[in-house]
Parts: sequence; C-alpha cells; structure tokens
Amino acid sequence: MSNNSIPNEQTSASLTEAKRILTGIKPTGIPHLGNYVGAIRPAIESIQNSDHEAFFFLADYHGIIGCYDPAIIHESTKVIAATWIACGLDPERVTFYRQSDVPEIPELAWILNCSCAKGLMNRAHAYKASVDINMEKADVDPDQGVTMGLFGYPVLMAADILMFNATHVPVGRDQIQHIEMARDIAGTFNHRYKTLFTLPSAVVDNDIPLLTGLDGRKMSKSYSNTIPLFGEPNSQVSSEKQMHKAIMKIVTNSQLPDEPKDPDDSALFEIYKAFATPEEIADMRAQYAAGIGWGDAKQALFDKINTEIAPFRARYEELMANPKELEEILQMGAEKARRHSRKQLDKTRRAIGIRPLAKIK
Amino acid sequence: MSNNSIPNEQTSASLTEAKRILTGIKPTGIPHLGNYVGAIRPAIESIQNSDHEAFFFLADYHGIIGCYDPAIIHESTKVIAATWIACGLDPERVTFYRQSDVPEIPELAWILNCSCAKGLMNRAHAYKASVDINMEKADVDPDQGVTMGLFGYPVLMAADILMFNATHVPVGRDQIQHIEMARDIAGTFNHRYKTLFTLPSAVVDNDIPLLTGLDGRKMSKSYSNTIPLFGEPNSQVSSEKQMHKAIMKIVTNSQLPDEPKDPDDSALFEIYKAFATPEEIADMRAQYAAGIGWGDAKQALFDKINTEIAPFRARYEELMANPKELEEILQMGAEKARRHSRKQLDKTRRAIGIRPLAKIK
Repeated sequence: MSNNSIPNEQTSASLTEAKRILTGIKPTGIPHLGNYVGAIRPAIESIQNSDHEAFFFLADYHGIIGCYDPAIIHESTKVIAATWIACGLDPERVTFYRQSDVPEIPELAWILNCSCAKGLMNRAHAYKASVDINMEKADVDPDQGVTMGLFGYPVLMAADILMFNATHVPVGRDQIQHIEMARDIAGTFNHRYKTLFTLPSAVVDNDIPLLTGLDGRKMSKSYSNTIPLFGEPNSQVSSEKQMHKAIMKIVTNSQLPDEPKDPDDSALFEIYKAFATPEEIADMRAQYAAGIGWGDAKQALFDKINTEIAPFRARYEELMANPKELEEILQMGAEKARRHSRKQLDKTRRAIGIRPLAKIK
Repeated sequence: MSNNSIPNEQTSASLTEAKRILTGIKPTGIPHLGNYVGAIRPAIESIQNSDHEAFFFLADYHGIIGCYDPAIIHESTKVIAATWIACGLDPERVTFYRQSDVPEIPELAWILNCSCAKGLMNRAHAYKASVDINMEKADVDPDQGVTMGLFGYPVLMAADILMFNATHVPVGRDQIQHIEMARDIAGTFNHRYKTLFTLPSAVVDNDIPLLTGLDGRKMSKSYSNTIPLFGEPNSQVSSEKQMHKAIMKIVTNSQLPDEPKDPDDSALFEIYKAFATPEEIADMRAQYAAGIGWGDAKQALFDKINTEIAPFRARYEELMANPKELEEILQMGAEKARRHSRKQLDKTRRAIGIRPLAKIK
C-alpha cells in the first residue's frame, strides 16, 4: 500500500518528521464489508504498524448535518465504536473519542469562522453540487435544502484537524479540497494573530481496494448490494449466518461445475482477493481454471472472510452487549483528546484577546 | 418610556407572563455619553424597576467578527464590564456574564446551524448591504471581505437567545430581523426534534433619546463628536476634566450673553433634556429666553450631567483599578448562566441523538 501525500509547498510537516494522523468517522449507518476493506482495516493497520500519533474520532457533529433521526445517530455511534474496537483499534495506542465529547471543537469552529472567507465555502464541491441540482429545476432557490450546517461544515472539519495540529489526514479524493480549506483558514489565523496551527496535508491512498458488491457493482449501501460486516443489530439471525446468506447471493454466471471459469470476470474472486494472501489467490485462480463450482467458490469465500472476521465478531458482540465498556473507552479517549484541546483552545482564545481580566482562584 | 413588543402571532410568551429579558453588549469600544443615554441607562432602569429575570452579557464572540485586535477586545471587555456595573447594574439581580465563559453557546450554535436554512442568512440585511457595496465595484467578488463569522452570526445570536429561553430581547429597529431569524431557527428545531426553545419577541423602545453630539449631529464614535462617559482609560487627564473639556467644545451659534436664545435650536439644550427633570427643563428653557450666555449654559449642562455621573465615576475607577473584582463578578455571572446553559444544552444534545451509550460510574 502506498500513501501519497498531496504535494504542497506550504506543508509545514515534512514526511520524515513524526506524523500526527487524524481520521474522522461519520456515525450514520451500519458498517458493511466494503467499509471494512476500504476504511477500517487499512486505517487500523497503518497505525498499528507505525509509531505515529493517531487521533480517530466519531464525527457525530457532522452526522447531524444529514441525519435528523436521533435514534440513528445514537445507534450508529454505538455500532461504529464497537466495530472499530472489535476490528483491532487499540484505544490505548490511538486517541479514540467522540467529537461531541470535546466541547472545545465547536468553540474553535466559531473562532475559525471569523478567519474564513465566505468565498472559500462558496467554492466547496459538495455545496456547488447541491446548487447545480437546484439550478436545473424551475422556480427553485439555488440554496433550497442547504442548511448552514451543510454550508459551513468544512470550518468544523478545520477545527477537528487544527485543534490537534494534525499533520496528515487520510482522505478520499473528494475530500482533498477540505484539507486545502483547513490550510487556508489556518494560514489566515496564523498570519493575523499568531502561528498556532500546523498546516495539515491530505494523504490519499490509491491502493485501497473498492470492494465489489453482491451484484458486481461497487459495494455501497445506496445500491443495497452489501455484505454485512457484523450483521444488523437486534436481528434474530446470527451475524455469521447473515454474512453467509449474503455471500450465497452473490451474482454469478450460469456456468456449471467442472466448466473452467474466468476469475477476472467474477465478483466472487474480486472479493476473495481482498482477503487472501498472494499464494491463496494463485491457488484459487487455479481452482477457477479447473472448474470449481460456484457453490464451492462461495463457500470458500465465506470461509476465507470468516476466518478473518470471526475473532472480531466475538469481541463486537461482547461490546454491543456491554455499552458501559464502550462508553468508558470513549470517555478515556475524550480525556486524552481534551488534554490537547483545552490547551490549544486556551492559546487560541488568548491570541484573539479573550482571557480573564485578572487571575482569580 | 413605552416598550413596544413587535406583534407576532407565534409569540409563545405573552406580555402578561413573567418575562426573561436578554441583552448583549459588544465589547469593541469605549462607551460615550450617547451609549449611556441610549443603551446603558434605559437597560439598567428597566430591569431594576421590574421583577423580570434578566440576562446581560458581554458579546465577545461577536466582537471578534469585526475586530482583529486582541488588545481592543480585551480592554473593551474590561471597560464595558466596569461601565455597566458602575452605572448601577446589580450583578446579584441580573445574570451578567461574558459570552466566552459559556462554552455551551458556541456548541449550541453549531447544532442550530443544522436547523437553519442558508437562505435565511442570504436575506440578512447586514450581509446584503455588504454584497450591495461590492456589487457597485468592478471586478469585485460580491462576497469580498465577508467572513463566515459575519455571514453566520445571526445563528450565534440565536444560540445566545435560545440557550436561556429568553422571552423578550430589547433591540434597535435594525436588529428586529435577527430576532425573527432566531424564531425561525427555534421553530425548525422544535418541529423537527422536540419543543425545547421558546420563541423570543423583539422589543423596540421608540422613546429612548438619540443623543446629540458636539457638532449637532447624532453622537457617534464614527463622527468623532462624542462626550466621554468615563474618559479614555490610561489618560493623564481626569475623566471629570475630559468630560468638562468635551462639553465646552459643543458647537453653539455666535449669539452674545443677554441675547434671548432658542433652546430648540441648540445641541446643548438637547443634551440637557436627557439628564434633567421636567421642572429643570422648563427652568432652563426660561433661562435661554432670558439670554443665558453659552459659557454659563455649558457649565450648567456639565453640572447637571456630572451630578448624575460623578457617583458612578468613583465606582468605575475603583473597578478599573481592581480587575480581580471585575473578574470575580463575571465568574459569578458565568456560574449563574451555566446553571441554565448546561441543562439546556444537555436537553438539546439528547434530542438530536447525542448522549452517553451507558451510565458510567
């Protein structure tokens, strides 16, 4: 896997220095196998195998922008916290916290609003896409359906990053602009008041696989073609059975057992590759050529995935049954995060002229 | 003085119920006599003579929108806190706090952003005025010079008001729209989640005098025609002498002593009226007709104002010399304010789905 830091001459943290990596996770859904392969596993692996500092947070104050259902926000926070910890995130190693447990973040966001040109937000891709959709309709205000939360969330994201002076922020290509905005806001503040904020770099990993879904398209909740990672919470069916059932539904062609099959034309094989070693992949390729039946190929895929996921599943179910343990982990993370955020906010407030009139006790 | 509540059928707090009044004071300058007559005195009088609840706050997080000088923000906070207390604000009677001491306010502002249509902010008078000025220039972006702070501050103002469920907000005519915006945001949140926020009413007092300045125009810092209330801080000249000197500079016509004078054509008399009883005003009117000299009229005006201000001046100077006392007063106010804001924010967070996963400890 190669991490490509976006080249930028203003970068204040060079790649050879110690990195401080920050990753936000929006709690608005139940993770599926595509999220696991595309986000959870690489994020955890890249941290566990490095000595960089890492901040991972549940971005619930971003979640409320697009989701007005309090039950979904609450349940997703629980499921996603449990998922990441079950999949190996070590909360002793990583500062793992819920954004809303750090009140310094929205306070910093307000301060940064005053160092952020509105024009910068006007040019945000996500906002412009909303406006474009409205412009195509007759008699619709270009800002129809846009809240101040949607319009201003890149400033909250800047506060998330700048609060901890993160040096590297792993993002998808569509998020690079937000990191540039955070740099711009940091630069304005640093120039106007005092150099308090590190300019962060976006890190885009081009080698992370996009997992294929049940129907051969990209695995995505919006296509309803996902394989559950740990299954739907509160289901009567065990999560192992939910996964098995989904894998058995993967679309194949109508070739019979013993007919040689093309692995590169098969969603089954695509998914298998994301879980197997090079030797196992080569072996499975040979089995396709030898005419493995689709049922057997599906069972082999399930066994392969299940070998990796089963140990996590037990921990996941334990955490879901014991939200007190989860909450304690998040509170420990919040305490660690706030050791930084209290200091950073205090410095920021002093720089803008907000401080006590005298020392009192 | 007649308080005219803006009629609005949605008003949830009728005028016969107990009022909760909220007033914000922006700390970005040194108060002059026009501020005293137009804002400080009426606000304090209207509260002291009622049994309504009152919240007065130093709006430093609004101050940073237009003022990037940390020394001015800090010094103005001190001067304005000292001024209001010296002029009779009783911090035991009124909850008097610094906005930035209540971290629940910017946090609520973020939550309200998500219940505020961007279109509402597009229509704000102050924002539209900035855009209009830019549109008149060639090659200038309409949003030139507009920060996200300037664009979004009506949401922060809504948080200031809704946090305490204020029922009545005294404002100038130019601020009525902001109260309507707060009502709109509260209505959206209440409808979407849970009825947590009282819809506030704007209160406009048409009888508060606009004080005349040294040059006969409205007294205003931007005209440099002000009479200092307590003088410039750190001046070598006593504040009483600063006031005397300013009053002696008030522009008059060239009529000589003993010539009968028209009081209704005199800035001196205008200002006198704001400080005298009806009997004193009638008496001074007679003295003008009898040809009082301008020097004597100025001295009479100074004596009149000084009788009212001198007792405050001593207290002001005491507070300015003892910032520890001021800070203690503000901390007491913050503690009182946070007894409300902590509860209100907790209810708001629960309504949107943000709460602990389990009770711990």
